[in-house]
Parts: sequence; structure tokens; C-alpha cells
Amino acid sequence: MASYQYDLVVIGSGPAGQKAAIAAAKLRKRVAITDRRHMLGGASLHTGTIPSKTLREAILYLSGFTQRTFYGKGYSVKDKISAQDLAFRVQAVVKRELEIVRAQLKRNNVTAISGTAKFRDPHTIEVECDTGPQTFTTEHVVIACGTRPAHSETIPLDGKRVCDSDQLLLVDQIPRDLIVVGAGVIGLEYASMLTALNVKVTLIDQRPQPLGFVDTEILDTLYYHMRRNGAVFRFGEKVVKVEVDDRERVVAVLESGKRVHGEGLLYTIGRQANTDLLNVEAAGLTADDRGRVKVNEFYQTDVPHIYAAGDVIGFPSLASSSMEQGRLASCHMFGLACNSRPDLFPYGIYTIPEISMVGKTEQELTDAKIPYEFGVAKYEELARAQMIGDDTGLLKLLFDPNTKKLLGVHAIGERAAEILHIGQAILTMGGTIEYFRDTVFNYPTLAEAYKVAALDGLNKL
Amino acid sequence: MASYQYDLVVIGSGPAGQKAAIAAAKLRKRVAITDRRHMLGGASLHTGTIPSKTLREAILYLSGFTQRTFYGKGYSVKDKISAQDLAFRVQAVVKRELEIVRAQLKRNNVTAISGTAKFRDPHTIEVECDTGPQTFTTEHVVIACGTRPAHSETIPLDGKRVCDSDQLLLVDQIPRDLIVVGAGVIGLEYASMLTALNVKVTLIDQRPQPLGFVDTEILDTLYYHMRRNGAVFRFGEKVVKVEVDDRERVVAVLESGKRVHGEGLLYTIGRQANTDLLNVEAAGLTADDRGRVKVNEFYQTDVPHIYAAGDVIGFPSLASSSMEQGRLASCHMFGLACNSRPDLFPYGIYTIPEISMVGKTEQELTDAKIPYEFGVAKYEELARAQMIGDDTGLLKLLFDPNTKKLLGVHAIGERAAEILHIGQAILTMGGTIEYFRDTVFNYPTLAEAYKVAALDGLNKL
Repeated sequence: MASYQYDLVVIGSGPAGQKAAIAAAKLRKRVAITDRRHMLGGASLHTGTIPSKTLREAILYLSGFTQRTFYGKGYSVKDKISAQDLAFRVQAVVKRELEIVRAQLKRNNVTAISGTAKFRDPHTIEVECDTGPQTFTTEHVVIACGTRPAHSETIPLDGKRVCDSDQLLLVDQIPRDLIVVGAGVIGLEYASMLTALNVKVTLIDQRPQPLGFVDTEILDTLYYHMRRNGAVFRFGEKVVKVEVDDRERVVAVLESGKRVHGEGLLYTIGRQANTDLLNVEAAGLTADDRGRVKVNEFYQTDVPHIYAAGDVIGFPSLASSSMEQGRLASCHMFGLACNSRPDLFPYGIYTIPEISMVGKTEQELTDAKIPYEFGVAKYEELARAQMIGDDTGLLKLLFDPNTKKLLGVHAIGERAAEILHIGQAILTMGGTIEYFRDTVFNYPTLAEAYKVAALDGLNKL
Repeated sequence: MASYQYDLVVIGSGPAGQKAAIAAAKLRKRVAITDRRHMLGGASLHTGTIPSKTLREAILYLSGFTQRTFYGKGYSVKDKISAQDLAFRVQAVVKRELEIVRAQLKRNNVTAISGTAKFRDPHTIEVECDTGPQTFTTEHVVIACGTRPAHSETIPLDGKRVCDSDQLLLVDQIPRDLIVVGAGVIGLEYASMLTALNVKVTLIDQRPQPLGFVDTEILDTLYYHMRRNGAVFRFGEKVVKVEVDDRERVVAVLESGKRVHGEGLLYTIGRQANTDLLNVEAAGLTADDRGRVKVNEFYQTDVPHIYAAGDVIGFPSLASSSMEQGRLASCHMFGLACNSRPDLFPYGIYTIPEISMVGKTEQELTDAKIPYEFGVAKYEELARAQMIGDDTGLLKLLFDPNTKKLLGVHAIGERAAEILHIGQAILTMGGTIEYFRDTVFNYPTLAEAYKVAALDGLNKL
């Protein structure tokens, strides 16, 4: 066996890369992690999850969104919310998180190398550091290089009026009306946030039903509430041209002939993986048209000592699942058995209101010809929801009508992504919905929704 | 068997009474529920849980409390928060909850009787209705008459400057400084809320260590943060006299000679059960000096067909446990087997920051000579906590170092009472803390604290 400098070099320091590095370091392996200058923490920290979720909290708060139940539709904490008000908070959180990432890597003796990495051969990584190129040999590699917003020739970006989600964080003025092209997770998250800020949003997607993996009832609830706040949906419609008219307004021309106007346009169709920067061919790998790398169930690429994890391997591209993929990759390469239940990974979508789910959807159960029953709790029935002003949320439990075993949990509303884990625990343990009937919940909480939904479900039998 | 008008008459319509009535009604029993005029919903709805927790939400929001991490200590949403700003919101929620209670009883065919009830004999209840006294015979009775604030001769209340927790909700001006006598759950909840409003609070309790059932580390964290916001604690000190000085300020004179000054004084030492209004002697029952009735494990009093539930039976006097007691009482009287695990009832204490716990405390385990290990997550390590501005919270897991089985969960911080139920599920299922290591949590959430705490705990082994 050749003598390598490192047991593992991780390319990319986002959620997948960090957890891969730390898992290996805990096994006392020699680990290095590389990322481009000023990009420690990856897109998640600098342009993705962290800024967008912080922005969301700032908007929820400053817009007084949930307070409108009490103080009327016109209510907001700050009369004129500026892009600077929002950016201020984002910078504070990003700075703090960056310190945490740095400290965590240091504490675990992971060497952090700053610079653009690429493969020289399957076991050699060259990093373009500030001081010049450096070369590292390694027994294993994890590719966790992440993605960037994909671009389109039809919609040329100018980074100001017409921008992608990275550029949106830098705009110095919040538009009064905005066209969002692409109703995936990112498009919907931003569209719903801006809707809460009273921006008039038109959301366009070529697919008749985007976000197909989410429960239909939950999506309908989201769309209903976004519409009530002024959003317009154009699904099954294709943008053929984008232009700026003589009043400096953006116009998206649809294939159907409609012309949609806005002060700005946000383009959020897909992400492009950063493998094109890595010279993966030198490692014996190929990437697909979106730059994605194929992996097996152990997150191994076609070259067995090279693993890949996170957004670079595609769906679901959530920070939470990426972390787990990184951890599992390192566990597998160093022979550590790991329990993992990808079928029980939760999904959190931080729209306003927020969405979360775990287990099966009604559609999946129907397709698999598995009979199920359901129980629903509307937030408006919960004392806590009234106190915090959320009358829109709902929690749905899917269960086996014979055994009463829980099959899936689908939630929309305040704290949905938090309380989902209660159902996830019961699902993982193979429990029944009777658990929720027989359990005492703190009062008043949103978690009580489980009891209400379980009683609703049991009443149907 | 005598032919009674009702299978069950429930005296009191708070959480315990409601759930007792509904559980019996679901078994197709003839059920009536009585409460005094304008008191449907009980103290929980009118003067207790609902108003105080709504007030808390209003204060958290209007004071901009959690936002101070971002905008500095002086920040508040509203410059001058009036008692009316707060009361407005409380009234909205109480009104809505009252409708829900009424609708729920109606939907379940429970007869609601408005008027003061008392026993004429063990099977006969007389209710002083608006239209005159009416008499009802019943096979079973649930006493769920609740409590009212206890009073003391040492501290005569005037309902304005010197008041109890019921009267506090009616004050028309928020005092600049306040003396709180009694550091139980109610005293601490109000004291911490007022502290968040920048009221200078001095909290006095005769006991050196009030709230002994709560984990010490959690309590210390609460006290630490309340002190940082200006609260002063005088534990192990007794109030011997209360007077109003010539500047119209309240002075509490302590046995130690200290004189504590404030614009107002809130007296929250204990609660007195309303059994004195019920003529329980006619039913063959006696109450203790606080008006409490003794029950067995099935919530049966010494007179087997009469049950009691809720605050009238004493600790823990939480709406959540009262509901369950009511349900269990009805299940037992009508022979329905019920699973219940009182040792796994959760506790939610809505101080600022909020506290929640389930299972064993370190003290209980130590007393029982059960070895344990612990794992802690500080909220400041969590991305979500930074986004919402909570850098004070913590979650502690207690577990068996050999089997790794979870033994207790103790939390303080935002949403503590929500995320506690994740640990409660694993505790109930007899799971280990490895569950948290091996589970994917939505990112960023506070629920992730479980993973951080579990890793901390496992690292100790």
C-alpha cells in the first residue's frame, strides 16, 4: 500500500464535507478538508441554508407576519423594511456560524486548506493556495463540492434586476413586485418570504405540479395562503423571453403569450454542481449534464476509494441529509457499521408557513396499493397556535387502519420542522398512533396537534 | 340500582372536567358538566394557563425580547407597552378558546349547566342556576372544581398595588418595579415575564430552594438569565409585614430586617381549592386545609363513585396532567382499560426562557443510587438558536452509561416545551440515546439539540 499524506481529503466544507471530515477524524484518521478562499462552510453557510433561513426569521419578525392575526393585515413592526435591515442580521449569524465551523474542525484536528482543489490523479489533490499550488496525496476522497445556481440562455442575468438566489442576497432594494421563475424548494422559499413582506410575487414553473414529493394537501395549503397574501401562480407555463421595458420593468414573456411584469426577476431553476472545477476526469470519474456524480448506497462513486455526498449527488439536496451522507461515507470507507434509515430522513422546507414531512405520502401509499387511513389536526384547534397567531397550520398522520402503525407525518405551519421529529421518533420505533392518544403533551403546545390528529384518525376506524 | 338522571355529573369545566366529560360522552354515557356563571373553561381559561401564556407571547413579541441579541439590550418593538396592549391580545384568545370549549362539549352531547354546584347527598347535585336552584341525580361524580389564589393574613390584598395572580391580569398600569412573594411556578412565570418587560422584580420565597422538582442546572440557568435582566432573588427569606409608605410605594419587611420596595406586590403563595363551595361533607368527603381532596391511583376519592381530578387534588396542577387525570377518571369509572404512564408526564413551565422536563432528574437518580451519565447541548451551538436570537438555552439528556437507555430530558430555552416531546417519545419507547446520534434532524432546528447532546454524552463513555 502506498504511503499517503492523508487518510482522507474532503473537497468542500459544506454540511456534507464537514460531517465526513469529522466522522473520519473521530476514528483518528488523518483528515484534510479543502474549500475555496472565503468559502469555509460552503454554499450552505454563505449563500444557501444559513442566510436564507436567517432572512426568513428576520422577515417573519420585522414584518410582524404572524402578528397580523391580532393587529390586522396592515400590521408590520417596521414601516419600511430595507434590504439592509435584513442583511444586518444575516451577516451576524453567518459570522457566528463560521466561527463554529472553524472551531469544530480545529477541535477535531482536521487540517483546513484554503484554495481551489482539483484532482491530479485518483489519489492526488492539487490545491491552488494563496502561496501557490500545493499537492496532497490521500488514500480516500470525499467529493462534497456542492452546487451553484444553474443559469439559462433564455434568461440572461444582470445580477440586479434579473438575478439568481445568490445575487438576491446582495440586492440593495427590495422590489415591490417580483417574478420568480422556478417553483422548487428554493423558489418557493424566497417567493413566500417576499410575499410576507407584501411584495407581489408571480411564480412561474414549467411543471404543472412542482415539488411532487410533497403531500398535495400540504402544498395546496401553502399555495392557498400565499395567494391570500397576493401571490400568483403560473404553473405549466414556460418562459420564452425576458426583457426590460422602457419603464425599466422586467417582462417575462410566456409561451402562452402572457406577459408578466415585475421590478425584478429571480431565476431559481435547478443547481449546477461544481465538479467542473475539479478535473474529475483525472480521477477516472464523469459527471452528468448538471455536474452530478453517481454514487451507490454507500455514497461510493465508480472509483471505490472516492465517495461523494451532499448536493453534488442530487436529490434531496438538504443540509440535513447531506450531513448524514457525509457521515455515512466516512463510516463506510473506514469499515464502521452505521445504522441509517434514508426512508426516515425528514424534509424541512422553510417556506412561510414552513413545511415538514417524514415517511410515506398518500400518493406513494396509493401507488404501492397500501391501504391507509389519516387523521388531521388543524392548528386553529390548538390553544398555542392561537396565542402565536397561526391559524393556518395543519398536521396529518397517515397510518395502517389494521395495525394502527404510523406510516407518515406531514405538517405545515409554525414550528412544523421542529415538531415533526416527534412523529419521526414513533415512526422509527415502529409505533402506532395510539401512542399519541395515550401520551400527555405539554399544554399549550403545537405538539398537541399529534393528539388531536390521532384522535381524529382513531375516530375514523 | 337507582335510576339516575345522569351517568356522570362533572363539577368544574377546566381541563380536567372537560376531558372527564368528553371521555364519558365518547362511551355514550349521559353526561352533564357544571360551572359557575361566566366560568365555562375554568380558571385555566379565565385567569390561569390561557391568559398567562398569551400574555407571555405578547410580551415576548412586543418587548422584542429575543431580538435583543441582534438589536441590543434597549430594543423593544413598542416604546411604551401598556397593560391594554397586552390585555387586548389575551381577550382575543380567551374568546376564541371559549368558543372551542363550548363547541366541543356540544359536539359530544355533554349538557352544560351554568351555576354554582353543591352536593345535597352523594348522588345529588344542586345547581344554583339563573332561573333558581335545580337538582340533578347522577351515578358518578367528578370533582374538578379547581383552585383560586390562596391569601394570607400577613399580606392583605387591595387588588391594585398588592394583588394576587387573578388581579394582576386586571391592573391598568404596568409597575416599574414589583415585589413577587412566592417563587413557585406561577410566581416565577410572572416574575420572568415582567423582567422581560424591563420591570425590576424582586422575588421572595421562604424556601431556600423553591421548585425542588426541577433540575438544578436548569433552574440555575433561569435564575442567571433573570438576574442579567435585573431580577433580584431573596430565597430563604420570610415576609413579616407589608405596608404602603408615604410615597405610595409598597414595602415588604422581611424577617431578616431587609425592606424591599416596589410600585406593586404580587402574592403567589399557593392555591386554595374551591371545595369549600361544594358542601363536600354532604357527599361524605373531607378536604384538607388547602381544600384538596385525597384520591387513589384511579382518581377515586374515599367515596368510590366520586372521583376528583385537576388542581383540586394538588401537585402537579398543570393543565396537561389535569386533562389526563380527568380522562383516566372517566375511563376507570366506566371500566375502560387505559394506558397511562404518570412517570412520563412532561412538565412545561412557561417562564422566559421556558422550561420543560420529562423522566428522572439527577437528584432523583442520585437518591435512588442509580448511576447515570449526561450529555448537554447548548443552544449557542445550534444554527437555529442563533437565527432566532436565543443564546441561553440548553438541553440535557440523562442516560444509563451501560445500556445507554434514556432516563430523563431537561430543557430550558425557546420551544423547550415543544421539542421535549421528542425525548419523551424515545423515553416511552425505552430507546437509547444512540437513537439521536443515528437520526437525521431537520436543519436548522432546535430539535438538533438532541443530536448534539447525545454525541456529547456518548463521548463521555
